[in-house]
Amino acid sequence: MDFAAELKRHVARVERGIEQYVPRADTRPARLHTAMRYSLEAGGKRLRPVLLVASAETFGARDDAALPAAVAIECVHTYSLIHDDLPCMDNDDLRRGRPTAHKAFDEATALLAGDALLTHAFALLAGNYPGDLARALVRELGTAAGSQRLIGGQMEDLLAEKKTDATADEVEFIHLHKTAAMIEAALVMGGLVGGADEAAQASLRQAGRHLGLAFQIIDDVLDATADSATLGKTAGKDARANKATYVRLHGIDASRRMATEHTATAQRALRELPGEHVFLEALAQSMAQRTK
Amino acid sequence: MDFAAELKRHVARVERGIEQYVPRADTRPARLHTAMRYSLEAGGKRLRPVLLVASAETFGARDDAALPAAVAIECVHTYSLIHDDLPCMDNDDLRRGRPTAHKAFDEATALLAGDALLTHAFALLAGNYPGDLARALVRELGTAAGSQRLIGGQMEDLLAEKKTDATADEVEFIHLHKTAAMIEAALVMGGLVGGADEAAQASLRQAGRHLGLAFQIIDDVLDATADSATLGKTAGKDARANKATYVRLHGIDASRRMATEHTATAQRALRELPGEHVFLEALAQSMAQRTK
Repeated sequence: MDFAAELKRHVARVERGIEQYVPRADTRPARLHTAMRYSLEAGGKRLRPVLLVASAETFGARDDAALPAAVAIECVHTYSLIHDDLPCMDNDDLRRGRPTAHKAFDEATALLAGDALLTHAFALLAGNYPGDLARALVRELGTAAGSQRLIGGQMEDLLAEKKTDATADEVEFIHLHKTAAMIEAALVMGGLVGGADEAAQASLRQAGRHLGLAFQIIDDVLDATADSATLGKTAGKDARANKATYVRLHGIDASRRMATEHTATAQRALRELPGEHVFLEALAQSMAQRTK
Repeated sequence: MDFAAELKRHVARVERGIEQYVPRADTRPARLHTAMRYSLEAGGKRLRPVLLVASAETFGARDDAALPAAVAIECVHTYSLIHDDLPCMDNDDLRRGRPTAHKAFDEATALLAGDALLTHAFALLAGNYPGDLARALVRELGTAAGSQRLIGGQMEDLLAEKKTDATADEVEFIHLHKTAAMIEAALVMGGLVGGADEAAQASLRQAGRHLGLAFQIIDDVLDATADSATLGKTAGKDARANKATYVRLHGIDASRRMATEHTATAQRALRELPGEHVFLEALAQSMAQRTK
């Protein structure tokens, strides 16, 4: 398998899906749809939708069956970044090397564009899958993005900024909720589209959980060691905001080792899957080695 | 039929549903769930969930079958109020006679509580109805709350504030999208839960559209004629914000007449429904006569 070529193929497919399954920028109100597409089309790694599509393929999903679900999860991820960047949250000016949505438009438009992307994700799932599958996908995404996972993690992350004594357990809680929940959902939603059985779903969930933890730990390490130009977003902001991170608690070397261990655990879970999962394993490896 | 007693029964049932189908305030993260419940439990007319439950009953839905859907639509309505009150939107301090969410908590918590209520609405539908019904409900709510209806109306409303020459068509567009979409969705979702056929769905949609327009026109009239204490929210703010309203375009008397006409059209559509719809007709009448 040529990993780079496969990854490129998946990313291109996801971007075609975004083109197809999101209202055109000139749809009324044009300012809102332009803002939605501005953030969606800013690029980025497309990690969650690629994981979803690759997971679905592992279980034999045909053609573009997974695309609406892949676009839905990217809509939710993008909404969470837009709201996270707002002045009342992280107040960030730069994202993926471009001005953040509220800088390129204004705060109200950014707020509404985020709301609209979140809403669109669920409408996409309901509009493109048959009853039982649509229901299962909405349930998975709604839970992962909800007050006890993604949003809960963001809330605890904000609260932890004011705490100088956050414990390792608290930081793991934040990372599991803020990041791992959606990576887990990506793999599981792909499995649902592909018709994975319960045992396979459990393996996907296990893999997603550890991949997500590895991903967030590496994010912490990169924030502390890379520069803004490489990252395409403001570097060093965790330390400035006194954020509860793995790096602050464990240091850089121990954090890197923990990311390697979580990646290995994820890969073991992936090897339990039936079907062809070489790409997913290689993707896990590349996530562990990323420099941005 | 004793309208007041029936209304009270429906409202009590909706409030029991909110108690049952939304995470408890002490669920981790407690600050987030407390903020969600603070806004949800602030009272208000419960118009959308009552319309939904009453519509479902018209079609013979039994017991509490409509409750999760009723709570879902109230979650979406409440999220839209929380985000609308934020400083970057209407910047309002008072809602239902109490401090708005960002005043009672802080902006970040209010933002996340709104996001969480919106997400919870879809998770509730997927978690409490069988496949085809869940899919239809998510589709209806996702469309009504989306970028081309509710959020689209809010975006156009914001843009119209800067326009002194908004036309009657533009103002009707805003009201249809910002307000009527969700009232239409309430009646249609009730019909879906009750098993309404396509002709009945069309009547519900027609009734909802005109009820929604009447509701928003009366809102405009009350904003211009009532005081803040009566309304439980800041009065006179449309004129101060130079908002594009029916009152600004047509004056108070003509606006009142238009609301009466839309109410009559809605009632005619309701009379086409099979089954017992006296309560819905009376509710339409009471909406037209409200003073807050």
